[in-house]
Amino acid sequence: MKNKKWFGIITLVSLILFVSTCYAANSHGKKRQKKIGILLVTFGSSKASAQVSFDNIDKKIKTLYTNTEVRWAYTSHIIRKKLAKQGKHLDSPEVALAKMMDEKFTHVAVQSLHTMLGFEYEDLKNTIRAYKTMEGFEKIILGNPLMATQKDMTDIVDAIFQIIPKERKKDEAVVLMGHGSHHPANAFYAALMFQLQLKDPTLFIGTVEGFPEIDLIQELLHKNNIKKAYLMPFMSVAGDHAKNDMAGDDDDSWKSILTKAGIVCVPVLKGMAEFEPIVNIWAGHLEGSMAQFK
Amino acid sequence: MKNKKWFGIITLVSLILFVSTCYAANSHGKKRQKKIGILLVTFGSSKASAQVSFDNIDKKIKTLYTNTEVRWAYTSHIIRKKLAKQGKHLDSPEVALAKMMDEKFTHVAVQSLHTMLGFEYEDLKNTIRAYKTMEGFEKIILGNPLMATQKDMTDIVDAIFQIIPKERKKDEAVVLMGHGSHHPANAFYAALMFQLQLKDPTLFIGTVEGFPEIDLIQELLHKNNIKKAYLMPFMSVAGDHAKNDMAGDDDDSWKSILTKAGIVCVPVLKGMAEFEPIVNIWAGHLEGSMAQFK
Amino acid sequence: MKNKKWFGIITLVSLILFVSTCYAANSHGKKRQKKIGILLVTFGSSKASAQVSFDNIDKKIKTLYTNTEVRWAYTSHIIRKKLAKQGKHLDSPEVALAKMMDEKFTHVAVQSLHTMLGFEYEDLKNTIRAYKTMEGFEKIILGNPLMATQKDMTDIVDAIFQIIPKERKKDEAVVLMGHGSHHPANAFYAALMFQLQLKDPTLFIGTVEGFPEIDLIQELLHKNNIKKAYLMPFMSVAGDHAKNDMAGDDDDSWKSILTKAGIVCVPVLKGMAEFEPIVNIWAGHLEGSMAQFK
Amino acid sequence: MKNKKWFGIITLVSLILFVSTCYAANSHGKKRQKKIGILLVTFGSSKASAQVSFDNIDKKIKTLYTNTEVRWAYTSHIIRKKLAKQGKHLDSPEVALAKMMDEKFTHVAVQSLHTMLGFEYEDLKNTIRAYKTMEGFEKIILGNPLMATQKDMTDIVDAIFQIIPKERKKDEAVVLMGHGSHHPANAFYAALMFQLQLKDPTLFIGTVEGFPEIDLIQELLHKNNIKKAYLMPFMSVAGDHAKNDMAGDDDDSWKSILTKAGIVCVPVLKGMAEFEPIVNIWAGHLEGSMAQFK
Repeated sequence: MKNKKWFGIITLVSLILFVSTCYAANSHGKKRQKKIGILLVTFGSSKASAQVSFDNIDKKIKTLYTNTEVRWAYTSHIIRKKLAKQGKHLDSPEVALAKMMDEKFTHVAVQSLHTMLGFEYEDLKNTIRAYKTMEGFEKIILGNPLMATQKDMTDIVDAIFQIIPKERKKDEAVVLMGHGSHHPANAFYAALMFQLQLKDPTLFIGTVEGFPEIDLIQELLHKNNIKKAYLMPFMSVAGDHAKNDMAGDDDDSWKSILTKAGIVCVPVLKGMAEFEPIVNIWAGHLEGSMAQFK
Repeated sequence: MKNKKWFGIITLVSLILFVSTCYAANSHGKKRQKKIGILLVTFGSSKASAQVSFDNIDKKIKTLYTNTEVRWAYTSHIIRKKLAKQGKHLDSPEVALAKMMDEKFTHVAVQSLHTMLGFEYEDLKNTIRAYKTMEGFEKIILGNPLMATQKDMTDIVDAIFQIIPKERKKDEAVVLMGHGSHHPANAFYAALMFQLQLKDPTLFIGTVEGFPEIDLIQELLHKNNIKKAYLMPFMSVAGDHAKNDMAGDDDDSWKSILTKAGIVCVPVLKGMAEFEPIVNIWAGHLEGSMAQFK
Repeated sequence: MKNKKWFGIITLVSLILFVSTCYAANSHGKKRQKKIGILLVTFGSSKASAQVSFDNIDKKIKTLYTNTEVRWAYTSHIIRKKLAKQGKHLDSPEVALAKMMDEKFTHVAVQSLHTMLGFEYEDLKNTIRAYKTMEGFEKIILGNPLMATQKDMTDIVDAIFQIIPKERKKDEAVVLMGHGSHHPANAFYAALMFQLQLKDPTLFIGTVEGFPEIDLIQELLHKNNIKKAYLMPFMSVAGDHAKNDMAGDDDDSWKSILTKAGIVCVPVLKGMAEFEPIVNIWAGHLEGSMAQFK
Repeated sequence: MKNKKWFGIITLVSLILFVSTCYAANSHGKKRQKKIGILLVTFGSSKASAQVSFDNIDKKIKTLYTNTEVRWAYTSHIIRKKLAKQGKHLDSPEVALAKMMDEKFTHVAVQSLHTMLGFEYEDLKNTIRAYKTMEGFEKIILGNPLMATQKDMTDIVDAIFQIIPKERKKDEAVVLMGHGSHHPANAFYAALMFQLQLKDPTLFIGTVEGFPEIDLIQELLHKNNIKKAYLMPFMSVAGDHAKNDMAGDDDDSWKSILTKAGIVCVPVLKGMAEFEPIVNIWAGHLEGSMAQFK
């Protein structure tokens, strides 16, 4: 008898407290039903060879967030235009977000699939800042690109050691090709070079557009008396740059330059987003955003 | 001989000055080719009867700006959703602007087709403010709704006198029905009432949602011993409000209320945007924006 | 025995729920100690006669919020400069807010003491919008000026009836002088005129700079066969405009114009902020902001 | 005769073209008189030893821009508070900018004297972004901190080689102490390390708060068999960190750690801003901003 009475009181007290907690929670947010969406944003590529990278990320993210809609946007206007001519219509981040706003998404995690905190990322950040000032989303968060925090740098170094070709011998180099930029964030490549070489002095990273340049890398390969190098794109996809600037037959491709310098080159035509350990870093950034929607 | 020499020098000097002027002009702007667009923004309506108003504005604006692309956006989410079910896809202002940005428009004149500076207009202004902070448009200007400046008020009064039914006699009233709002801008209706009555004390304007209310208007009609009233919507379209709240058969329609009070009612089911003199006011606002693109 | 056991469990459950509620609450807010401040913002005046108005508001607000720091800022650069020469240093809203940010205020209620939603108010709103994007304040709210909502209009009409000179007879007019503006919000004066005259057709409001003009008012006075008029500034202070444009001896003062037209004029040189019923409207707006800090 | 006539025509044409050019130029800008100001922004320091650094920059900048007012702001609230107690009143960037706005400066070059693109710089950028949205300045530009572009990195490396103690021998190390941060920009230290070591493998940079840590540097010193190291702060001033964390006698100072590891330490207590080659880099950034005001 008494037990029942007490049980009733406990239930009541618990209920009151529980309800008041929920009420408090409600009073913080708006009344709209929560609708979470993910927007994956990449520079984009018109090469078919790039699609495998995008498909891989898409599959990974959809497996992780089965109940959440996952959409894509391409930051490159030229790529979007090229694809449109082929009948493939990709949205700009602005159009993609405006559509999600129209469809009453309340929480949007935008995940940059860029490699670095460069101009493309900054424009995207600027767009998201603008969307924050408009009525529409309750919360919109932009996830960091691949290389941002010191933890990312450590994770990237670890991942690279997992994905370099198994057949590579100790005295053979791995030369990564980053895109490079005139943006200050270009410094991240030199920072990554330092950390790669701390672990293994036969690992190198250079860029197409800036420091560290291929000339410097060639010089360092010679200094280290290296005769063979695996070339890998340090970009999400193995697109134009990987095929031509890295592994092409023109005189100014990295393969040509190094071959001419007496180094045997083995190009690896796989985008970074084809490798699980690298995709996990981007996915980790998205996870950080999604955690803020709970 | 000398003439030729001098002519040559003049030509040269003129050319240098002209080129330097153009160069200066170029150095101010960006290098992109100018692409001007017009975005007409209305609340929207799902009623077929409203389309005649929109068509009228559309025709007017396209006649005025033959070489400029004219697009539409609806601010009402509910209307967009209703129309989508009928297979008519209208963009929100955000989607419309994002698409124009994607299509490399450089100058966009957004023209509010709202009646007043209320919440819908403010949200639109907020959206335009956000678009100004994004990379994309060189210039984006929002034109005032129908009622904004004192000149607008005078123009509206003049226009109303041109559009009231010709058959109306001096002792018969014209009662305009505005939408009304909880927004401060609701004061514009009372301001318009004052200015209408200055010219003709048998002209009235009330609103569905706020001051001046139909009760006050009924009272004023009695005070002025008026026996007959023409009812006209003071909204861009003759939609739901005109059909039901103004001219409907329900007890709380204006027609029913005034009829019950002994006043003969003649509803005029035409939206403001069906009348040339009113459309000219909106068009004048757009003209002000377009002039800033020259 | 059982009772005690149950009592213990209830206490524990309650405690857990209570603590988790508080923890949730904490995780929403920041850790800083709440520090609320009030910033009263007026156009300012360099006339000694205006000070009584400011003192009156200052006293009222400090009485209402005894534990909250109350500060002042003047939006007029010219007035600030004039006063600085007299050794009185008044801050611009930007400087005042920057100082409050520096002094770690967390919640700031900015109360506009302007009369209308004109340019001065818009600039202030713009400044507050900018401060919202800076790190610093947790919450900053701008209170409406005197005339904003329909409730304000009703309250103002009521207040005016309380403050017009007791000795005024029924057939004598009261003519209020507003400042006026080229801003759309100038329509509020006509709106107020309409509402004043609804209650008493011998009450008028005109403006120095726009519609309704003194010529119109003179015309309406004649039409109503009015022989005597009390002139009152509808501005927070009885400053330059009240002394000169309203009650001055120059040919173009309202007193001169109306006197010449055969109307006996009695100027009342008191600012609106000298009257309790009017100050209560501004104070009510501030109260609305302060309520959001609880 | 003809000559004179032609000369007159040329003069006229030239004059017309010249005037129209100027008119065009005027129509672009506002009418206010140009008033350019410089705001130097540092974290600040309460140590007297830091003042020599600030004085050095101040002198340099004032020598370069003799006709332009140069002001200072400190981003650190704690430092400002400490100094205020000593009677030295330093403004926050927000207060400093609000005052300059009030004093009608039209063009403001804000020069960050921070070392890196970290949190302090981002907050400052955010503040400047906010000021851009307020009415006031025609142009406000924020100059990069010491380390931003690849050119900066090269310049810094060059400058460091000029400022390391003359008495240092080839087999002796120079260990720079940066502040470090949890901000992504911390990667710039590793990037600098890579570039320093490219030129001279006995140069090192570590940070107090992040990667590269003193343990790593100690390890690298051992690996390179180095017995003596010059310790220098890589911060604008030789303040708290230089005195204590670098050169202090506590067990966890870099001097103590390295000494214990058998390395002779020679601390150099001079801030980076005491060295001309480094100050020139900051000055170069400011020059870039000032050039945009011409």
